[in-house]
Amino acid sequence: MGAPKSGATPRGRAGTARGIGGEFAAIDRLARLLPGPPPGEVWLGDDAAVLRSPGGQLVLTTDVAVAGVHGDLALIGLDDLGWRALSAAVSDVAAMGARPRGAVLAVAGPPDTDLELLYRGVAAAAEAHGCPVVGGDLSTAGQLSVAVAVLGEIDGTPGAVLRSGARPGDQLFVTGPLGAAAAGLRALLAGQPAGGPDDEALRRAHRRPRARLLEGEAAREAGARAMVDVSDGLLADLGHLADASGVGFRLDAVPVHPGASLDDALGGGDDYELVVAVADAGALLELFARRGLRPPLAMGTCDGDPAVRTLAGRPVPSAGWEHPWGPAPEG
Amino acid sequence: MGAPKSGATPRGRAGTARGIGGEFAAIDRLARLLPGPPPGEVWLGDDAAVLRSPGGQLVLTTDVAVAGVHGDLALIGLDDLGWRALSAAVSDVAAMGARPRGAVLAVAGPPDTDLELLYRGVAAAAEAHGCPVVGGDLSTAGQLSVAVAVLGEIDGTPGAVLRSGARPGDQLFVTGPLGAAAAGLRALLAGQPAGGPDDEALRRAHRRPRARLLEGEAAREAGARAMVDVSDGLLADLGHLADASGVGFRLDAVPVHPGASLDDALGGGDDYELVVAVADAGALLELFARRGLRPPLAMGTCDGDPAVRTLAGRPVPSAGWEHPWGPAPEG
Repeated sequence: MGAPKSGATPRGRAGTARGIGGEFAAIDRLARLLPGPPPGEVWLGDDAAVLRSPGGQLVLTTDVAVAGVHGDLALIGLDDLGWRALSAAVSDVAAMGARPRGAVLAVAGPPDTDLELLYRGVAAAAEAHGCPVVGGDLSTAGQLSVAVAVLGEIDGTPGAVLRSGARPGDQLFVTGPLGAAAAGLRALLAGQPAGGPDDEALRRAHRRPRARLLEGEAAREAGARAMVDVSDGLLADLGHLADASGVGFRLDAVPVHPGASLDDALGGGDDYELVVAVADAGALLELFARRGLRPPLAMGTCDGDPAVRTLAGRPVPSAGWEHPWGPAPEG
Repeated sequence: MGAPKSGATPRGRAGTARGIGGEFAAIDRLARLLPGPPPGEVWLGDDAAVLRSPGGQLVLTTDVAVAGVHGDLALIGLDDLGWRALSAAVSDVAAMGARPRGAVLAVAGPPDTDLELLYRGVAAAAEAHGCPVVGGDLSTAGQLSVAVAVLGEIDGTPGAVLRSGARPGDQLFVTGPLGAAAAGLRALLAGQPAGGPDDEALRRAHRRPRARLLEGEAAREAGARAMVDVSDGLLADLGHLADASGVGFRLDAVPVHPGASLDDALGGGDDYELVVAVADAGALLELFARRGLRPPLAMGTCDGDPAVRTLAGRPVPSAGWEHPWGPAPEG
């Protein structure tokens, strides 16, 4: 991501403490110390930073995955952790409507870490997403952490899709049903053998998520006004989009993945589907169809009142997922 | 760096085990799993990766600093650790002759980490190097690690200066005297109050190193054939340049910083001066003078025989600094 955003959350780890005065307060502290961007650039605060370049725009983002926080190595392999780390950063590039150009990988961990296995997962994710690993760094540390930074690019117009562009009346879509990763984690935690193709698909959604790069590019080209990836759960991420845009939202329905629950879909995170706000739904549907992409699913509309946040007419819980971090907030 | 190179070493930590079959073997394992770059690009293996762009070239690099490995928090502050983490990555950009465009910061650490202090050091280094922090990520972890990725750019020609371009007969320069950071660490370890301005300068060299950005750009524009930053110690880094270029070297003299020893200069690391190989020393000296930069210091020449590595006619020790990492090498 281009900002210490909510993405810095316990991906795939149900029940981690959410903290008060945690991560977001810490982010505010960083932002206060830093100068703001020049016109035409976006630094802290979106899925990725946006920088101008002679060819259009560059985006830059980083994600860090920590063993035991972002992936339980009793449930998934080191290769899965590597896959997830790269995919999470690539998903931030997708959420801007950009194309990944290359990734660098900083690994810190115990000397007996099976780097070969970790690298195999990273390399597989790099190939699957068309995002080559172009460099890296290694250090010893007591606990394994994998930080991935991804550079992306956008040629021409329209430019990167920010979180902040949604307007009242915009229609909200999501690129796929939600909750699979959370349901898959639950299946892994249950420790039973996979119970058939659906169950295997859920587990795979947790172990090997895919960033929606083609969908993100198509949404940008179709004139999307705002976009965010669902890394922290729909309510949290849609909340970020609504906060940044100064709008509320009225959801009619949330598409739930087969085998997942509505709670998984609303709060589970790690799905890496994209939420898109558009003024012209027809253009979005038409371009997705023309490119052979899975049709985006309508969820509802943006509301002019930022306080309105409803699902089927009822207020939704405002829960997000945060790390406990840093000192307690003042006052 | 653009590669898991020797930079992944115990910066500022004297006496850390060097390991056998350690980091370099691990790097080879990663490189074997990854596809190679297209013509005109450099991925793994240099200070930073080089990517083509419409405006010229982009460089991308990452460095990770781990508390207790790359900086002892009993000796330096969290702000110093933050400064060092950013500066180390920016130095890799300098070593390509590029200009930094922006950095992203991935921090993993204990919840009680004083993020404000860490960020202050990062922000100060960002300002000092003209490299804005444009994004980041945060996670809890048992041990503090700070991964910084830096994007740099080169407009026009000549392109990025690689490690591999040195040729027999090229003259070797360094942008400043060496060993200050190692001597400063020793002074800090001794635990005595600073003994005057020289001593304070040494300690500052360890706590607050500066990347040689202007020097790197000037060297590139003056036609440098190969360049590397001294992050691991002169012998290790010059060795990387010589290995990559397929040359040896004959050093006449090594400039030692006041208060430092020759051993500090040869093996101490963390100085972040640049080693430059040039065919035309006059152009280098002239451009540095024209820009008001400290004159680069002549050290010797490149030799056609890769086995020749001497200082004042005597073979130099081939020691580098490596982390112990990964399983023992096969065979």
